Amino acid sequence: MTVTELIPEQARDRFARGLVTPTAGWCPGWAQANLIAVPRALAWDFLLFTQRNPKPCPVLDVLEAGATGGPLLDGDIRTDLPLYRVYVDGELAEETTDVTGWWRGDLVGFLIGCSFTFERALVAAGVPVRHVDQGVNVPMYRTTRRCRSAGSVGGPLVVSMRPVPGALVETAVRVTAAYPAVHGAPVHVGDPAELGIADLDQPDYGDAVRFEPGDVPVFWACGVTPQAAVVESRPPLAIAHAPGHMLITDARDEDYRIRTA
Amino acid sequence: MTVTELIPEQARDRFARGLVTPTAGWCPGWAQANLIAVPRALAWDFLLFTQRNPKPCPVLDVLEAGATGGPLLDGDIRTDLPLYRVYVDGELAEETTDVTGWWRGDLVGFLIGCSFTFERALVAAGVPVRHVDQGVNVPMYRTTRRCRSAGSVGGPLVVSMRPVPGALVETAVRVTAAYPAVHGAPVHVGDPAELGIADLDQPDYGDAVRFEPGDVPVFWACGVTPQAAVVESRPPLAIAHAPGHMLITDARDEDYRIRTA
Repeated sequence: MTVTELIPEQARDRFARGLVTPTAGWCPGWAQANLIAVPRALAWDFLLFTQRNPKPCPVLDVLEAGATGGPLLDGDIRTDLPLYRVYVDGELAEETTDVTGWWRGDLVGFLIGCSFTFERALVAAGVPVRHVDQGVNVPMYRTTRRCRSAGSVGGPLVVSMRPVPGALVETAVRVTAAYPAVHGAPVHVGDPAELGIADLDQPDYGDAVRFEPGDVPVFWACGVTPQAAVVESRPPLAIAHAPGHMLITDARDEDYRIRTA
Repeated sequence: MTVTELIPEQARDRFARGLVTPTAGWCPGWAQANLIAVPRALAWDFLLFTQRNPKPCPVLDVLEAGATGGPLLDGDIRTDLPLYRVYVDGELAEETTDVTGWWRGDLVGFLIGCSFTFERALVAAGVPVRHVDQGVNVPMYRTTRRCRSAGSVGGPLVVSMRPVPGALVETAVRVTAAYPAVHGAPVHVGDPAELGIADLDQPDYGDAVRFEPGDVPVFWACGVTPQAAVVESRPPLAIAHAPGHMLITDARDEDYRIRTA
């Protein structure tokens, strides 16, 4: 059985048992999600931050304080992702496959849409997804664009980047626009310098990806944005997925597609 | 100058000076919004309620405690709507054109998308908007569908209803689906009994509207839903617009349109 044939519960079970891998290309047809969990005392600021920045932070669900599962996963949010990052006072304290030891009863978990969710639709529309074809994680970059802050929470916009053949950029925009809950249409096409990205080969998260002749860089808002905000805002504790190592949810990608035609 | 030629600031100024009128058809091209303001202590539950019920409660902006203006209105949220409803312990305490006397520094205002925002697009697509043509408020109904609750906040789904010529229902669905931030596609087409609505001529809010031969009732999720939740959840104080008497914002309706083609 290949990773494309697993159902989410099977994939999460593999991750709970210790498998570490980026999840792009896993369980096509199922939605993937970013995780950020913060103490209840900061949850208002975080929820408001997501509301004010819906392109990078489209909230799919909120697990209230103490909850480790919910409608999007019949499982345990502390073990079912392949890799986590734990931040203490805004510093990366540990990268680990299990955060049960770090969990606290006052943590509120935010599940935020992930652009891996629309990759199957891109492929179906004839748009190649280079990082999947190359077997690497998607490259992600901190930009010089600022998010709108909320109380103590603020930071830069983080983007993911996919090289897209020039003739297919319009298709990629149209296809992904139909999925606003998983970042929707790109935030930028073309020159990375306009986002303050100096070198596409040096992503801040994930892996560099190889361009094919005629490819144009296309940038989507990214659910790692809350982690960049954690680094700036320095909450006492925050637990997140490792970039590209997502929660595979029990929701279908089509659940997040807007049908206008 | 007719009401369709006013800019939002001019309309809000008329309302601040006491004009009372439903706002359907006012300032076409500009987005309209529902208001619900609750004490800070309840704001988390309310924001979570909106997040869990994005069809009736798409949040356009949150005015933090103490704020009476924001990016969506260069004005004063306490005076710039044509009519307000004040709820004390879930009971309607007053309907008034100015809530300055009721306002408290701990009130958090939620601005929620309004389906009046997509009516210009419906007309542009050839779909008649009966309540505007008939010069009445849109009819709204409490349904037997339950929202997903959040903490202390729960209640029924409220819908608005527009009669649409049968041959144009598909167009109406397609056009409005492109505006998810102002309720998007309908939640139901046809038999009102399926939503627990006994009599279309007896709306719970707004006015009854006359059907033309061949019209089918089409129901959209409605931003009055938080008011029905207030009635059930009984917060000590809540301030809302009177149904159909909306905030006319400084945002364009097109700002909330998803472009997939």
